[in-house]
Amino acid sequence: MKSVFGSPGKVSGLLLRMFQFLFAAASLALMASASGFSFATSFCFLIAAMGLQVLWSFGLACLDIHALRLKKDLHNHIFLSLLAVGDWVTAILSLAAACSSAGVMVVFIKDTDICRSQTTLSCNTFQISIALAFIAWFLLAVSSYVVFWLLATI
Amino acid sequence: MKSVFGSPGKVSGLLLRMFQFLFAAASLALMASASGFSFATSFCFLIAAMGLQVLWSFGLACLDIHALRLKKDLHNHIFLSLLAVGDWVTAILSLAAACSSAGVMVVFIKDTDICRSQTTLSCNTFQISIALAFIAWFLLAVSSYVVFWLLATI
Repeated sequence: MKSVFGSPGKVSGLLLRMFQFLFAAASLALMASASGFSFATSFCFLIAAMGLQVLWSFGLACLDIHALRLKKDLHNHIFLSLLAVGDWVTAILSLAAACSSAGVMVVFIKDTDICRSQTTLSCNTFQISIALAFIAWFLLAVSSYVVFWLLATI
Repeated sequence: MKSVFGSPGKVSGLLLRMFQFLFAAASLALMASASGFSFATSFCFLIAAMGLQVLWSFGLACLDIHALRLKKDLHNHIFLSLLAVGDWVTAILSLAAACSSAGVMVVFIKDTDICRSQTTLSCNTFQISIALAFIAWFLLAVSSYVVFWLLATI
Protein backbone atom coordinates (compact mmCIF):
# COMPACT_ATOMS: atom_id res chain seq x y z
CA MET A 1 0.00 0.00 0.00
CA LYS A 2 1.50 3.27 -1.10
CA SER A 3 1.02 6.42 0.95
CA VAL A 4 0.84 9.36 -1.45
CA PHE A 5 0.29 13.04 -0.54
CA GLY A 6 -3.44 13.71 -0.60
CA SER A 7 -4.57 10.07 -0.26
CA PRO A 8 -8.10 9.57 1.09
CA GLY A 9 -8.14 8.86 4.83
CA LYS A 10 -4.90 10.84 5.49
CA VAL A 11 -4.41 14.30 7.01
CA SER A 12 -3.09 15.69 3.69
CA GLY A 13 -6.18 14.29 1.92
CA LEU A 14 -8.45 15.90 4.49
CA LEU A 15 -6.68 19.27 4.09
CA LEU A 16 -7.03 19.09 0.29
CA ARG A 17 -10.77 18.35 0.58
CA MET A 18 -11.26 21.18 3.10
CA PHE A 19 -9.52 23.73 0.86
CA GLN A 20 -11.54 22.52 -2.15
CA PHE A 21 -14.70 22.99 -0.11
CA LEU A 22 -13.67 26.47 1.13
CA PHE A 23 -12.66 27.85 -2.28
CA ALA A 24 -15.76 26.40 -3.99
CA ALA A 25 -18.04 27.75 -1.25
CA ALA A 26 -16.42 31.22 -1.47
CA SER A 27 -16.77 31.23 -5.27
CA LEU A 28 -20.43 30.14 -4.99
CA ALA A 29 -21.26 32.71 -2.32
CA LEU A 30 -19.60 35.58 -4.21
CA MET A 31 -21.27 34.72 -7.52
CA ALA A 32 -24.71 34.22 -5.94
CA SER A 33 -24.43 37.54 -4.07
CA ALA A 34 -23.23 39.55 -7.11
CA SER A 35 -25.94 41.64 -8.71
CA GLY A 36 -26.87 40.66 -12.26
CA PHE A 37 -25.33 37.17 -12.30
CA SER A 38 -28.47 35.78 -13.95
CA PHE A 39 -27.70 37.94 -17.01
CA ALA A 40 -25.30 35.23 -18.27
CA THR A 41 -26.21 31.52 -18.32
CA SER A 42 -22.53 30.60 -17.71
CA PHE A 43 -22.59 32.31 -14.32
CA CYS A 44 -25.64 30.22 -13.31
CA PHE A 45 -23.75 27.11 -14.51
CA LEU A 46 -20.79 28.19 -12.32
CA ILE A 47 -23.09 28.37 -9.29
CA ALA A 48 -24.44 24.87 -10.04
CA ALA A 49 -20.95 23.40 -10.58
CA MET A 50 -19.54 25.01 -7.43
CA GLY A 51 -22.61 23.75 -5.51
CA LEU A 52 -21.84 20.22 -6.66
CA GLN A 53 -18.16 20.60 -5.71
CA VAL A 54 -19.11 21.97 -2.26
CA LEU A 55 -21.30 18.91 -1.58
CA TRP A 56 -18.75 16.44 -2.96
CA SER A 57 -15.73 17.87 -1.12
CA PHE A 58 -17.65 18.34 2.12
CA GLY A 59 -18.89 14.73 2.02
CA LEU A 60 -15.39 13.38 1.39
CA ALA A 61 -13.88 15.62 4.08
CA CYS A 62 -16.38 14.12 6.58
CA LEU A 63 -15.42 10.63 5.39
CA ASP A 64 -11.71 11.48 5.87
CA ILE A 65 -12.40 12.72 9.44
CA HIS A 66 -14.34 9.50 10.14
CA ALA A 67 -11.48 7.38 8.73
CA LEU A 68 -8.85 9.32 10.70
CA ARG A 69 -10.78 9.01 13.98
CA LEU A 70 -11.42 5.28 13.64
CA LYS A 71 -8.07 4.69 11.85
CA LYS A 72 -9.90 3.01 8.97
CA ASP A 73 -8.17 2.18 5.70
CA LEU A 74 -10.03 3.61 2.70
CA HIS A 75 -7.69 2.13 0.07
CA ASN A 76 -9.94 -0.55 -1.40
CA HIS A 77 -10.59 -1.02 -5.09
CA ILE A 78 -14.36 -0.30 -5.19
CA PHE A 79 -14.14 2.85 -3.05
CA LEU A 80 -11.19 4.22 -5.06
CA SER A 81 -13.00 3.51 -8.37
CA LEU A 82 -16.09 5.41 -7.20
CA LEU A 83 -13.87 8.24 -5.96
CA ALA A 84 -11.95 8.41 -9.26
CA VAL A 85 -15.14 8.64 -11.34
CA GLY A 86 -16.75 11.19 -8.98
CA ASP A 87 -13.61 13.34 -8.82
CA TRP A 88 -13.24 13.23 -12.61
CA VAL A 89 -16.85 14.27 -13.29
CA THR A 90 -16.79 17.03 -10.65
CA ALA A 91 -13.40 18.35 -11.83
CA ILE A 92 -14.48 18.44 -15.50
CA LEU A 93 -17.71 20.26 -14.59
CA SER A 94 -15.84 22.79 -12.39
CA LEU A 95 -13.26 23.51 -15.10
CA ALA A 96 -15.97 23.80 -17.77
CA ALA A 97 -17.96 26.24 -15.61
CA ALA A 98 -14.88 28.32 -14.70
CA CYS A 99 -13.67 28.48 -18.32
CA SER A 100 -17.07 29.34 -19.81
CA SER A 101 -17.52 32.08 -17.19
CA ALA A 102 -14.02 33.39 -17.92
CA GLY A 103 -14.85 33.44 -21.66
CA VAL A 104 -18.02 35.41 -20.94
CA MET A 105 -16.07 37.84 -18.70
CA VAL A 106 -13.62 38.53 -21.56
CA VAL A 107 -16.59 39.29 -23.84
CA PHE A 108 -18.08 41.64 -21.21
CA ILE A 109 -14.83 43.52 -20.53
CA LYS A 110 -12.72 43.36 -23.69
CA ASP A 111 -14.79 42.40 -26.74
CA THR A 112 -17.84 44.50 -25.89
CA ASP A 113 -18.41 47.27 -23.36
CA ILE A 114 -21.25 45.57 -21.47
CA CYS A 115 -19.46 46.01 -18.10
CA ARG A 116 -19.15 49.76 -18.63
CA SER A 117 -22.58 50.34 -20.15
CA GLN A 118 -24.54 48.16 -17.70
CA THR A 119 -23.47 49.45 -14.29
CA THR A 120 -25.86 47.05 -12.51
CA LEU A 121 -23.45 44.17 -13.27
CA SER A 122 -20.86 43.58 -10.49
CA CYS A 123 -18.04 42.69 -12.89
CA ASN A 124 -15.30 42.78 -10.22
CA THR A 125 -17.17 40.29 -8.02
CA PHE A 126 -17.68 38.00 -11.03
CA GLN A 127 -13.93 38.02 -11.69
CA ILE A 128 -12.99 37.17 -8.08
CA SER A 129 -15.57 34.37 -8.04
CA ILE A 130 -14.17 32.91 -11.28
CA ALA A 131 -10.58 33.09 -9.94
CA LEU A 132 -11.67 31.21 -6.79
CA ALA A 133 -13.43 28.61 -8.97
CA PHE A 134 -10.16 28.00 -10.87
CA ILE A 135 -8.29 27.45 -7.57
CA ALA A 136 -11.05 25.07 -6.36
CA TRP A 137 -10.79 23.15 -9.65
CA PHE A 138 -6.97 22.90 -9.41
CA LEU A 139 -7.15 21.43 -5.89
CA LEU A 140 -9.81 18.94 -7.04
CA ALA A 141 -7.64 17.99 -10.04
CA VAL A 142 -4.76 17.20 -7.64
CA SER A 143 -7.05 14.91 -5.59
CA SER A 144 -8.36 13.33 -8.78
CA TYR A 145 -4.86 12.42 -10.03
CA VAL A 146 -3.80 11.10 -6.60
CA VAL A 147 -6.85 8.79 -6.50
CA PHE A 148 -6.26 7.65 -10.09
CA TRP A 149 -2.59 6.93 -9.26
CA LEU A 150 -3.60 4.91 -6.16
CA LEU A 151 -6.19 3.00 -8.20
CA ALA A 152 -3.59 2.11 -10.83
CA THR A 153 -0.97 0.98 -8.28
CA ILE A 154 -3.24 -0.82 -5.77
CA MET B 1 4.35 -4.69 -19.53
CA LYS B 2 0.62 -4.10 -19.83
CA SER B 3 -0.99 -3.60 -23.22
CA VAL B 4 -3.88 -1.17 -22.78
CA PHE B 5 -6.19 0.14 -25.54
CA GLY B 6 -4.67 3.33 -26.91
CA SER B 7 -1.10 2.71 -25.69
CA PRO B 8 1.64 4.63 -27.54
CA GLY B 9 3.28 2.52 -30.23
CA LYS B 10 0.15 0.38 -30.84
CA VAL B 11 -2.39 0.50 -33.69
CA SER B 12 -5.17 1.63 -31.30
CA GLY B 13 -2.88 4.44 -30.03
CA LEU B 14 -2.15 5.52 -33.60
CA LEU B 15 -5.88 5.55 -34.46
CA LEU B 16 -6.64 7.68 -31.36
CA ARG B 17 -3.92 10.20 -32.31
CA MET B 18 -5.13 10.34 -35.92
CA PHE B 19 -8.73 11.03 -34.88
CA GLN B 20 -7.52 13.69 -32.41
CA PHE B 21 -5.57 15.31 -35.23
CA LEU B 22 -8.49 15.15 -37.68
CA PHE B 23 -11.10 16.59 -35.31
CA ALA B 24 -8.75 19.34 -34.07
CA ALA B 25 -7.77 20.25 -37.65
CA ALA B 26 -11.45 20.35 -38.73
CA SER B 27 -12.34 22.55 -35.75
CA LEU B 28 -9.40 24.87 -36.46
CA ALA B 29 -10.19 25.13 -40.19
CA LEU B 30 -13.90 25.82 -39.60
CA MET B 31 -13.24 28.49 -36.96
CA ALA B 32 -10.51 30.19 -39.00
CA SER B 33 -12.73 30.26 -42.10
CA ALA B 34 -15.82 31.59 -40.28
CA SER B 35 -16.43 35.27 -40.79
CA GLY B 36 -16.17 37.42 -37.67
CA PHE B 37 -14.30 34.95 -35.44
CA SER B 38 -11.95 37.72 -34.30
CA PHE B 39 -14.94 39.46 -32.68
CA ALA B 40 -14.50 37.22 -29.59
CA THR B 41 -11.13 36.59 -27.95
CA SER B 42 -12.26 33.07 -26.92
CA PHE B 43 -12.59 32.03 -30.57
CA CYS B 44 -8.98 33.15 -31.21
CA PHE B 45 -7.95 31.13 -28.14
CA LEU B 46 -9.78 28.10 -29.62
CA ILE B 47 -7.78 28.46 -32.83
CA ALA B 48 -4.51 28.60 -30.85
CA ALA B 49 -5.45 25.60 -28.67
CA MET B 50 -6.57 23.51 -31.65
CA GLY B 51 -3.35 24.49 -33.47
CA LEU B 52 -1.33 23.17 -30.53
CA GLN B 53 -3.39 19.95 -30.44
CA VAL B 54 -2.95 19.46 -34.20
CA LEU B 55 0.85 19.72 -33.86
CA TRP B 56 0.97 17.51 -30.75
CA SER B 57 -1.29 14.75 -32.11
CA PHE B 58 0.35 14.78 -35.55
CA GLY B 59 3.82 14.49 -34.00
CA LEU B 60 2.77 11.58 -31.81
CA ALA B 61 0.95 9.85 -34.69
CA CYS B 62 4.22 10.01 -36.68
CA LEU B 63 6.08 8.57 -33.68
CA ASP B 64 3.51 5.74 -33.44
CA ILE B 65 3.95 4.94 -37.16
CA HIS B 66 7.75 4.92 -36.67
CA ALA B 67 7.42 2.62 -33.63
CA LEU B 68 5.01 0.27 -35.46
CA ARG B 69 7.25 0.03 -38.53
CA LEU B 70 10.43 -0.67 -36.56
CA LYS B 71 8.52 -2.61 -33.84
CA LYS B 72 10.04 -0.35 -31.19
CA ASP B 73 8.78 -0.37 -27.61
CA LEU B 74 7.84 3.12 -26.40
CA HIS B 75 6.95 2.07 -22.85
CA ASN B 76 9.86 3.59 -20.94
CA HIS B 77 9.51 5.80 -17.89
CA ILE B 78 11.00 9.05 -19.25
CA PHE B 79 9.03 8.95 -22.50
CA LEU B 80 5.76 8.17 -20.71
CA SER B 81 6.37 10.98 -18.18
CA LEU B 82 6.91 13.50 -20.98
CA LEU B 83 3.83 12.18 -22.78
CA ALA B 84 1.69 12.39 -19.62
CA VAL B 85 2.67 16.03 -18.96
CA GLY B 86 2.25 17.04 -22.63
CA ASP B 87 -1.12 15.29 -22.95
CA TRP B 88 -2.33 16.86 -19.69
CA VAL B 89 -1.35 20.41 -20.70
CA THR B 90 -2.78 20.06 -24.23
CA ALA B 91 -6.03 18.47 -22.96
CA ILE B 92 -6.57 21.19 -20.32
CA LEU B 93 -5.94 23.94 -22.90
CA SER B 94 -8.31 22.29 -25.42
CA LEU B 95 -11.07 21.90 -22.83
CA ALA B 96 -10.58 25.47 -21.59
CA ALA B 97 -10.77 26.84 -25.14
CA ALA B 98 -13.83 24.74 -26.05
CA CYS B 99 -15.67 25.67 -22.82
CA SER B 100 -14.89 29.38 -23.02
CA SER B 101 -16.03 29.45 -26.66
CA ALA B 102 -19.20 27.55 -25.72
CA GLY B 103 -19.85 30.10 -22.94
CA VAL B 104 -19.44 32.94 -25.43
CA MET B 105 -21.77 31.19 -27.91
CA VAL B 106 -24.48 30.95 -25.22
CA VAL B 107 -24.09 34.71 -24.61
CA PHE B 108 -24.34 35.41 -28.35
CA ILE B 109 -27.41 33.22 -28.92
CA LYS B 110 -29.38 33.11 -25.67
CA ASP B 111 -28.36 35.91 -23.27
CA THR B 112 -28.08 38.64 -25.91
CA ASP B 113 -29.21 38.81 -29.54
CA ILE B 114 -25.77 39.47 -31.04
CA CYS B 115 -26.12 36.55 -33.49
CA ARG B 116 -29.39 37.95 -34.84
CA SER B 117 -28.38 41.60 -34.88
CA GLN B 118 -24.89 41.09 -36.35
CA THR B 119 -25.52 39.03 -39.48
CA THR B 120 -21.81 39.11 -40.40
CA LEU B 121 -21.10 36.54 -37.65
CA SER B 122 -21.27 32.91 -38.87
CA CYS B 123 -22.82 31.58 -35.66
CA ASN B 124 -23.63 28.13 -37.08
CA THR B 125 -20.03 27.57 -38.17
CA PHE B 126 -18.80 28.65 -34.71
CA GLN B 127 -21.08 26.04 -33.10
CA ILE B 128 -19.91 23.19 -35.35
CA SER B 129 -16.28 24.15 -34.73
CA ILE B 130 -16.84 24.15 -30.94
CA ALA B 131 -18.57 20.74 -31.09
CA LEU B 132 -15.60 19.31 -33.03
CA ALA B 133 -13.22 20.83 -30.45
CA PHE B 134 -15.09 19.00 -27.66
CA ILE B 135 -14.75 15.68 -29.53
CA ALA B 136 -11.02 16.36 -30.11
CA TRP B 137 -10.60 17.10 -26.39
CA PHE B 138 -12.45 13.90 -25.37
CA LEU B 139 -10.18 11.73 -27.55
CA LEU B 140 -7.11 13.48 -26.13
CA ALA B 141 -8.42 12.94 -22.58
CA VAL B 142 -8.70 9.19 -23.30
CA SER B 143 -5.06 9.11 -24.48
CA SER B 144 -4.01 11.16 -21.46
CA TYR B 145 -5.59 8.72 -18.98
CA VAL B 146 -4.15 5.68 -20.79
CA VAL B 147 -0.64 7.16 -20.60
CA PHE B 148 -1.11 8.09 -16.92
CA TRP B 149 -2.32 4.53 -16.19
CA LEU B 150 0.71 3.04 -17.99
CA LEU B 151 3.04 5.38 -16.10
CA ALA B 152 1.56 4.34 -12.75
CA THR B 153 1.72 0.60 -13.52
CA ILE B 154 5.10 0.47 -15.32
